[in-house]
Amino acid sequence: MSQPQGRLLGLGVGPGDPELITVKALRLLQQAPVVAYFAGRGRKGHAYASIESHLQPQQIQLRLEYPLTTETVSGPLSYDQIIAAFYDRSALSVAAHLHEGRDVAVICEGDPMLYGSYMYLHDRLAADHPHQVVPGVCAMLGGAAMLGTPLVYRDQSLSVLAGTLPAGELHRRIALADAVVIMKLGRQLAKVREVLQELGLEQRALYIERATMETQRMLPLADVDPASSPYFSMILVPGTRWQA
Amino acid sequence: MSQPQGRLLGLGVGPGDPELITVKALRLLQQAPVVAYFAGRGRKGHAYASIESHLQPQQIQLRLEYPLTTETVSGPLSYDQIIAAFYDRSALSVAAHLHEGRDVAVICEGDPMLYGSYMYLHDRLAADHPHQVVPGVCAMLGGAAMLGTPLVYRDQSLSVLAGTLPAGELHRRIALADAVVIMKLGRQLAKVREVLQELGLEQRALYIERATMETQRMLPLADVDPASSPYFSMILVPGTRWQA
Repeated sequence: MSQPQGRLLGLGVGPGDPELITVKALRLLQQAPVVAYFAGRGRKGHAYASIESHLQPQQIQLRLEYPLTTETVSGPLSYDQIIAAFYDRSALSVAAHLHEGRDVAVICEGDPMLYGSYMYLHDRLAADHPHQVVPGVCAMLGGAAMLGTPLVYRDQSLSVLAGTLPAGELHRRIALADAVVIMKLGRQLAKVREVLQELGLEQRALYIERATMETQRMLPLADVDPASSPYFSMILVPGTRWQA
Repeated sequence: MSQPQGRLLGLGVGPGDPELITVKALRLLQQAPVVAYFAGRGRKGHAYASIESHLQPQQIQLRLEYPLTTETVSGPLSYDQIIAAFYDRSALSVAAHLHEGRDVAVICEGDPMLYGSYMYLHDRLAADHPHQVVPGVCAMLGGAAMLGTPLVYRDQSLSVLAGTLPAGELHRRIALADAVVIMKLGRQLAKVREVLQELGLEQRALYIERATMETQRMLPLADVDPASSPYFSMILVPGTRWQA
């Protein structure tokens, strides 16, 4: 008789503040025999840092380390191919525990399904393994809370955009939205700020780095040094305040 | 000497499942002497229902009841004016406790700053009172988790739209997005479904009602009866799966 499969658990742990994990994700995290997490080379990993204090000594930790630290790649394989192969290997490492009957909690900063790296394991494993996804507080909501700004009123629409889009594309999409969140800023900051200026939105735009983390920083967008804006920074353009 | 003001707390309690509240919101909720919540006439209120089991007998409950149950209004005042006056009165009720030095936890389904009714109190009170906002898991992330679908990959953009927008406007905005969430469906369902058909997106669209609540229901969009789709339903059109 074959032994029951372990469950794949995709757990959102929130934007950074360890208390912004949900009661459900915390319970499932603490019950899981294996805790898997992604991290950059030489880094602790943001998701790991925010739940480290909740881990038990008997839990197996499965570190999934990105093979690249920048997008500069030389050699026969493209960046995308190297990353895809890394997700393939990661899925195999997770599956090995699932086949042994052990549940694997894959922790994910923010929410697992909104730009979360868990998605790439989900796409490779969910069809063949029992699984459960626990949503988490995503970074943009952490940002809005820390900035103390409502994001969208009533029938307003919200566009969530990656700062890596070309300037023209950003311009076109921002122009059509009532409220905007621009993620993945980092080295894209100067370009994004210029687009906001073109659209006359610079005064309405709010900037925050590492929202809800201990190293959080808020400053006027005009004062941000594009050379030092981290990947975990974002710009919010809230919808116009509703008044009857 | 004047006594210290109470704090205004905007607490996201998540999309419905009582366990999807964050550890932080739960702690602040249980410490607050006053718990305020919005509810429709004759209704318990979704936020209240999801945190009821966490309340303590000594906590003061401040129910803020919407004066209207439908958008059909007769008389000299518009719907918007009636609602705005209601938020004015609600802010005064909350402020009375703050002036007495009592913290008031305003609970909010989903997230307080993303279409949350807390925003209308925040806009009236935050400038004059100490306040803190705790983000929550919003409904669309609850939906994506329950449907088991990644929402956006890599540089894809996400548009969050209200189903109440005119069909032409919906068409234009959906056409430009990589992934879409349409909220506030209810009576708008037939119109929205038609727009998705026009755009050839009907097969990619996923439908869910009351995500993460006990009464949650998922069914193919084609099978939904527009007459019975509740307000707390949504459609997700996930971004195209990324593969290198």
